[in-house]
Amino acid sequence: MGILLTIAYDGTDYCGWQIQKNGPAVQQVVETALGRAFGHGDFALLGASRTDAGVHALGQRGHVVLRRPCRVPTEKLAQVVNSRLPRNVRIMAAAAVPDTFHPINDCISKTYCYKIYNAAHSNPLEARYAAFVPAPLDIAEMAGAAAFFVGEHDFAAFCASGSSVKTTVRRIFSLNVIKTGDTVEITVAGNGFLYNMVRILAGTLADVGLGKTAAANIPAIIHSRDRSRAGKTMPPQGLTLLEVVY
Amino acid sequence: MGILLTIAYDGTDYCGWQIQKNGPAVQQVVETALGRAFGHGDFALLGASRTDAGVHALGQRGHVVLRRPCRVPTEKLAQVVNSRLPRNVRIMAAAAVPDTFHPINDCISKTYCYKIYNAAHSNPLEARYAAFVPAPLDIAEMAGAAAFFVGEHDFAAFCASGSSVKTTVRRIFSLNVIKTGDTVEITVAGNGFLYNMVRILAGTLADVGLGKTAAANIPAIIHSRDRSRAGKTMPPQGLTLLEVVY
Repeated sequence: MGILLTIAYDGTDYCGWQIQKNGPAVQQVVETALGRAFGHGDFALLGASRTDAGVHALGQRGHVVLRRPCRVPTEKLAQVVNSRLPRNVRIMAAAAVPDTFHPINDCISKTYCYKIYNAAHSNPLEARYAAFVPAPLDIAEMAGAAAFFVGEHDFAAFCASGSSVKTTVRRIFSLNVIKTGDTVEITVAGNGFLYNMVRILAGTLADVGLGKTAAANIPAIIHSRDRSRAGKTMPPQGLTLLEVVY
Repeated sequence: MGILLTIAYDGTDYCGWQIQKNGPAVQQVVETALGRAFGHGDFALLGASRTDAGVHALGQRGHVVLRRPCRVPTEKLAQVVNSRLPRNVRIMAAAAVPDTFHPINDCISKTYCYKIYNAAHSNPLEARYAAFVPAPLDIAEMAGAAAFFVGEHDFAAFCASGSSVKTTVRRIFSLNVIKTGDTVEITVAGNGFLYNMVRILAGTLADVGLGKTAAANIPAIIHSRDRSRAGKTMPPQGLTLLEVVY
C-alpha cells in the first residue's frame, strides 16, 4: 500500500532531506517516526525533492510503501506520526496512492519561494527564514528580469558545478517578485529544478535589483550556458519548498 | 551622554531581557557587545520592558549612559555594535537623549503582538514565533471581546500572581484581532502592562474564540479582579514587543 505524505520542516538544524553521513536528515527522522508509529522499521521514504542543508519546506512530499496492511486509517496517520516527530518536522497530510505512483517521475510542478529581508539592519525575527541584503533592491527591475526566465530554456548557467543530469533543459511556469514590508519574495514554479537552481536564480535577480546586472542581460546569460555569468548561490535559509503537484 | 537603543531579538534562546542567574539574558549580550565596541565595560543598560524568557522583540528600547565621550558617531553605533552581537540580537537604531531621559518613566505607550497559529496541524515554520491552537477560533467573537478591554481598567484579573505593583490600573489604547491565512494576530497598545498581562489577555481571547467564554462576559471578568476568572497564560513564543513610544 502506497502512502503519499505532505511534509513541512524547518531545515535549519538538518543536513537536508536525504540521509547523509554528516548530520541528521529530515528523511531519517520521518522514517524513525513511521517506525515508532507502526511498530516496525521496514520503511524506505522517497522524497519528491532532495532539499539541501538549511532549506525549509511547507509542501515536501514523501512516498512510502507499507509492506504490511496499515493499522492506522490514512486520515489519522498525520496525527499519529506527528506525535512521534520533533517540533521542527510535521506531517501536514497523508493520502493513499496507486501502486504505480512514483513521487519524482509523476511530479508535474514544484513551487519554491526564496525570501530576502531587504532593510538597513538585519532583523533577528527574519534571519531564520530569509537571506539578508542591506542595499536597497529595485523590485520593478527584478520583476522585469524574472519574466525572461519563464518558458522552456537550457538552464546550464543556473546549475551548480559537479552535478550530473541528463539534460539541463527545464520549463519555468511562473516567476514572480513581490515586496511586502521589508521582505522580498521570489516565487518560482517549474517542471523541475537543477541543483541549486533556485538559489542561483535568486542571486541573479538580486544582482539585477542591486544594479550590478541589467534585466536586459538575462537572455544572454541564459543563452551562454556559463555558470560564471549568473549570480552567486544565495544562502539556504531563504529557500522554502512550497508545493509539489502531481 | 545618554543613548537610546532600539533593539530586536529572537528570545527563544534567552532567559529574558533582564540579567538572571539561570541563563543568558539579552541585556547581558548587548552590554557585552557595547563593552567590546567601546573598549571598556562601564555600561548599565536599562530596558523599557523586562520581556520574559522566550518572548521576542522588534522594538525593545535600552538606555545607556556613557561616562566617557562616545568615539563612535550615533548614526554608526548600530552597525558597530551589531558586528559584535550574535545573530539573534540586533540594534535597529540609536539616538542621543537628554540627561533627564528615563526609559521606563518616560514611556507613553507600548505595543505588543501575540500570534496564534490556528490550523489542524502545527506548522514547523510558524512554531518559533506563534502559539499553536488546533481548534478553529471565531475571530469575530474575539474582536468583539477585545473591544471591552479598551480604556482604563483595573486589570488585576490579568496579572500573574506573586507580582507586586503599586496599582493594577492600566489604560489600553487599542486591541485588535486579525487573521491572515492561518495566523491570528492580537495587537495591543497601552500605557503599561502588568506581569504576563498580554499573555493572559491572549489566553482569555482564545477562550472566547473557542466558545469557552462568551464575549459578553469580559466586563464581569475584568470587574471581578479575580485571576482565576480570566484565561490561561499563553506560551511565551507567541509574544513580540513591537514598539515603545516616548
